[in-house]
Amino acid sequence: MKATIITIGDEILIGQIVDTNSAFIAKSLDRIGVEINEMISISDDKKHILDTFAKLQNKVDLVIITGGLGPTKDDITKTTFCDYFEDELVVNKAVENHVVELIERVMNRKASQINKDQALVPSKCTVLHNQVGTAPGMWMKKENTVFISLPGVPYEMKYLVENEIIPKVVREYKRPYIIHKTILTYGQGESHVAERIEEWENNLPEFIKLAYLPAPGRVRLRLSGRGTDKEKLEAAIAENVKSLDAIIHDIIVGFDDDETLEVVVGKMLTKQNKTISTAESCTGGKIAQLLTSFPGASNYFKGSVVCYATEIKINVLGIPDSLIKEHSVVSREVVSAMALSIKKMMKTDYAIATTGNAGPSKGDSEALIGTVFIALATPNDIIVEEFNFGQPREKVIDRTVMKSLEILQKEILKNVL
Amino acid sequence: MKATIITIGDEILIGQIVDTNSAFIAKSLDRIGVEINEMISISDDKKHILDTFAKLQNKVDLVIITGGLGPTKDDITKTTFCDYFEDELVVNKAVENHVVELIERVMNRKASQINKDQALVPSKCTVLHNQVGTAPGMWMKKENTVFISLPGVPYEMKYLVENEIIPKVVREYKRPYIIHKTILTYGQGESHVAERIEEWENNLPEFIKLAYLPAPGRVRLRLSGRGTDKEKLEAAIAENVKSLDAIIHDIIVGFDDDETLEVVVGKMLTKQNKTISTAESCTGGKIAQLLTSFPGASNYFKGSVVCYATEIKINVLGIPDSLIKEHSVVSREVVSAMALSIKKMMKTDYAIATTGNAGPSKGDSEALIGTVFIALATPNDIIVEEFNFGQPREKVIDRTVMKSLEILQKEILKNVL
Repeated sequence: MKATIITIGDEILIGQIVDTNSAFIAKSLDRIGVEINEMISISDDKKHILDTFAKLQNKVDLVIITGGLGPTKDDITKTTFCDYFEDELVVNKAVENHVVELIERVMNRKASQINKDQALVPSKCTVLHNQVGTAPGMWMKKENTVFISLPGVPYEMKYLVENEIIPKVVREYKRPYIIHKTILTYGQGESHVAERIEEWENNLPEFIKLAYLPAPGRVRLRLSGRGTDKEKLEAAIAENVKSLDAIIHDIIVGFDDDETLEVVVGKMLTKQNKTISTAESCTGGKIAQLLTSFPGASNYFKGSVVCYATEIKINVLGIPDSLIKEHSVVSREVVSAMALSIKKMMKTDYAIATTGNAGPSKGDSEALIGTVFIALATPNDIIVEEFNFGQPREKVIDRTVMKSLEILQKEILKNVL
Repeated sequence: MKATIITIGDEILIGQIVDTNSAFIAKSLDRIGVEINEMISISDDKKHILDTFAKLQNKVDLVIITGGLGPTKDDITKTTFCDYFEDELVVNKAVENHVVELIERVMNRKASQINKDQALVPSKCTVLHNQVGTAPGMWMKKENTVFISLPGVPYEMKYLVENEIIPKVVREYKRPYIIHKTILTYGQGESHVAERIEEWENNLPEFIKLAYLPAPGRVRLRLSGRGTDKEKLEAAIAENVKSLDAIIHDIIVGFDDDETLEVVVGKMLTKQNKTISTAESCTGGKIAQLLTSFPGASNYFKGSVVCYATEIKINVLGIPDSLIKEHSVVSREVVSAMALSIKKMMKTDYAIATTGNAGPSKGDSEALIGTVFIALATPNDIIVEEFNFGQPREKVIDRTVMKSLEILQKEILKNVL
């Protein structure tokens, strides 16, 4: 079973916004064994949309389209559907009632004609009711291909994928099993990892594919298996993960598909019943934000002082002015003092501190642009590391955040072993 | 002049990663008048890649491909190029020297054969030297279409686009002028804005297109003009922006294409020489992180206390235990006290505080999931607002952050008027 995802919108094609909808839809379909053949982004142009539909007709089972469903003149998906299916727009009463009710309740005003026009849908379509917004989804079949239109607003699209499309596809189509297993490694580069597992990789069975997903400081390895015998597939994946683990056990830090480093660290802290706080200068609160971005953070995260200005390091964290004057604000000594101070202030087991020159111009310090100090205070010790992450600014900040979590994770792992 | 952007990688098609490269490339090309016709994501499959190349041959002027250039077995772009151009891989000495030097300097070890193989390129290609990584870019022409291959690592791709591709295209191709102007509005929905400007929209000249880009709480309006006479185009865009401003001046907050709310607010604070701090509970430091994500933040941002745990609100911010017991930690009274406390502690002109139940389960409060209180302390006053942003958690956090910045912005604007 194959699907193509189409995103409609000039704002995508001129790079004004990044298309995150396609990845969400792809992941949701992949989980139920639907293979994504292509993702395509095209402009708000009727001819271009119709040509794309025609090319996909009977080539794939599902075409999922997002965007172009808004109430304004630049939204042309519905009229294009009518052209393609030789259909006309009719008012759907259930949708109209929902739109009127939603506008009155949430916006606290009467629905206008533009609002009510959201209830116009092609007469032959199956309406996918959008409980979280005004634009309904539409499901229309022509010969062997189903065309589904969804609003482009991410949470409305998500609602319809999760509550309407996935259940309907599961009910109506037979699909193979697809299993992915992601192995998270830290600290060695892609080619280094590839060398170590070369022989293992060569011995993988035909129906299991390996992919390398490198990112600064880490490589994710993804095994993908596809077949009709679920148990055989699961056993083969498990066996190969086990033999891989035997080879690179030293750099493997996690297995869950969606597990980011902050989730891995959060779970480890929860399991060990330990707490953490942060004192952030150049990272501006990003470590705190990552550590609190998922449920259960209150089990291990207590808080943070973002001490962007030097005076906040002095007045709130209590770093001695003399220490800053002697060593500069971007220094091993200051970052250690920051970590120890926040750990004491927030009464946590661990504390991370960061200070650095993210650039592009120099701040309150003579340190080279890109220079960063990270400190980790542990229950009995303090670790300080110095880096130069170069430029641009966003890279310096992101690498500092990832490196901090990596140092923390290594340290927690030590306590387990 | 038309271009198509292709992203190669199974990780995109199963939704494991979001493709951010295409948007960057599109924006860079759009700025120099190259029109992006389509963006396509396809799998690491040689036949699929070759079929896609063949379809685009002589249909567009440029095909830019990212991904599949790594050193591992799943990276097949280079051999696919050889098939398509009937070419073979040869060692490029300059690239090999660069790779060996980079590995030795950065990784502090000898380059392996896998590393050195990065220097293998099709014999007929023009090499685009990648100073920030090991995989070179490649530029190859067949009849009327140029195919360009770039590494998928974002900052390497960016380096090559900015330093190699854009200058080469500008030198070698004649292009039309494209001008975009984005108008940032806050506080009214898409259809409401559309109604107000309907007549103006109907009177736009043929060569200027209008697009609506809605997001929670705000709508960006984008005018795009295309033509050969740069001055005429600029004048027409300016004139229409002026007449639009006359109609919806009350909701317009900015004009710059890339201007996010945090940048707008940052610029306003800098201009007025005012400072800000934040005390964040449910937002976990995200407001601080946004306000420090671009250069110049030290002009107005002093710092933040992320008081995720209730005890941090008491011990660090000095919120009376009794106040929390009486009103609960998610309350109008507590959020006011947080804002006043952080403003005093950090000696700033403004201070934002947030507290809420982001969910999915309840925390230290009986408030409904989705309930959020935001406080803004101004030089002479305190403003508190209550919201329910529903679910999921990420939406509650994001909307709280955006709403906080919006309240701040409105307040700063008042002081100007």
